[in-house]
Amino acid sequence: MVFIMKITTECVYCLLNRIIYETELSTKDVELRTEVIKKACGMLSEIYSPDECSASIATRVHKLAYETLGDNDPYKELKDESNNIAKSLVPLVEELVNNSDNPLKMSMICAIIGNMMDFGIAGGSSHPGMLKEVFGKTVKEGLGYDDFSKVEVLLKKASHVVLFTDNCGEIVFDKVLCRELKKAYPNCFLTLVVRGAPIISDATIEDARAFGFDEVVDEILTTNCFAIGVDFNSISDRLRAVLDKVDLIICKGMANYEAFSETDYKPIAYLLRTKCAPIANSMGIPQDINAIKLYE
Amino acid sequence: MVFIMKITTECVYCLLNRIIYETELSTKDVELRTEVIKKACGMLSEIYSPDECSASIATRVHKLAYETLGDNDPYKELKDESNNIAKSLVPLVEELVNNSDNPLKMSMICAIIGNMMDFGIAGGSSHPGMLKEVFGKTVKEGLGYDDFSKVEVLLKKASHVVLFTDNCGEIVFDKVLCRELKKAYPNCFLTLVVRGAPIISDATIEDARAFGFDEVVDEILTTNCFAIGVDFNSISDRLRAVLDKVDLIICKGMANYEAFSETDYKPIAYLLRTKCAPIANSMGIPQDINAIKLYE
Repeated sequence: MVFIMKITTECVYCLLNRIIYETELSTKDVELRTEVIKKACGMLSEIYSPDECSASIATRVHKLAYETLGDNDPYKELKDESNNIAKSLVPLVEELVNNSDNPLKMSMICAIIGNMMDFGIAGGSSHPGMLKEVFGKTVKEGLGYDDFSKVEVLLKKASHVVLFTDNCGEIVFDKVLCRELKKAYPNCFLTLVVRGAPIISDATIEDARAFGFDEVVDEILTTNCFAIGVDFNSISDRLRAVLDKVDLIICKGMANYEAFSETDYKPIAYLLRTKCAPIANSMGIPQDINAIKLYE
Repeated sequence: MVFIMKITTECVYCLLNRIIYETELSTKDVELRTEVIKKACGMLSEIYSPDECSASIATRVHKLAYETLGDNDPYKELKDESNNIAKSLVPLVEELVNNSDNPLKMSMICAIIGNMMDFGIAGGSSHPGMLKEVFGKTVKEGLGYDDFSKVEVLLKKASHVVLFTDNCGEIVFDKVLCRELKKAYPNCFLTLVVRGAPIISDATIEDARAFGFDEVVDEILTTNCFAIGVDFNSISDRLRAVLDKVDLIICKGMANYEAFSETDYKPIAYLLRTKCAPIANSMGIPQDINAIKLYE
């Protein structure tokens, strides 16, 4: 069964909200801000269609905004700050993971909580420090949807797993997750995929290098282009080959869900915080929960 | 000193949010919904300008939405429900007013709390019943900005006062306010102004008639057209004459603030709940408070 994440009416003003957010991060020039807003509205009036995938519409509007701003990374400072906040929480994450009966599952929970850090959307954080404020409380919440045991069954037989990262900040916890995956399944080949270009607050190859992912994964690839989630028309032959034969795809975050929902790839385990109603509804799970959901 | 409420970037997606909200109230037809969203985005891409008044841009986009929907009152049911909820709270309002040391001030506070009931915007209520849930708590909050004593000085010398209403629901409490005004200042001529046509959840002449405002005011006028707040190009000669010579203008709600901020009319007492940052910032007072603010 395929659940395609088509754009909803709610996505329209959420996307416009985020475009305005990044415009204000990028420039104080009122004329330039106005130009971006007018162009984004103009493009939405042309390409909005309830039959389109939310991620592909979002990619096109963000691309227009970045080009108009002449800024290839409006979220740069916010991304660095998110990484620093997450780094400061690593000792706490390590303590939780080490003291857990199920370190791998706990590392997934922490990586999902890291996914709360997301900017310019209603269900995300207003500032990077927010993660610090809510981390303990959210660990106690645990998983609102829990397919871990099903995922574990697949991991036990897997010889190759691929993990698609999402935002900066949470990428720091993703490293702990990758380490625990390799600790539990040392013979499983682990591929990491980050975004091919800076887009919103998502992690790129620079983040993967800065955090030494080469120590914990067997291979690092990128999505090969500027896209919300993944543009499957633009991925490398190597990534396409991985996706065709891999035993399990692990996707962090909503954008990867949006993009993969258009494809037949499986099995996919989504590890995310459901930060908006359209995604929660599409996945058939509650909003504002920590979720591991497997599509087999 | 004039504070003109120009449209902000935040107003753009708030307006689009409200357009989508009323579209979904009006129709389940996905094609029609899509047409309204595309047209609204298209108009915003053309007319958005940081030099324009927020109310006049909002009026044009709502007009396009209503025309495209072929619906002259998408909020009809919600307005009726709001009036019914407010009516059920009248005994509580009367008790508060009658037991108060300052019945007129208490009637203003209740009328301001009624202004919380507003739909399709982030700081407003999600459903009419919400007013019932928060009424008691919000009465205890009292006024976060209080120019009542300054307003009282003007009322004592006033021979003519005009009150511009805002939403349905709160209109029921506005009647108590009007009655208290006439009780305290029986020789003062009181003009009521409602919207000239149904627009969002605002009260019209039908509401003023249904609630028997003729019992408590000396004259009932309308803004004479379809407009967020007031379109001063379209008002009647009578209303223009009133505004030119009246001793005090009392305005309920944010839309009247937006519209009057473009004019030189004064003195104006704004009685409102600051439901959004752009209005709160423009007025120089905190967001999410009950406020009486006088511009002399």
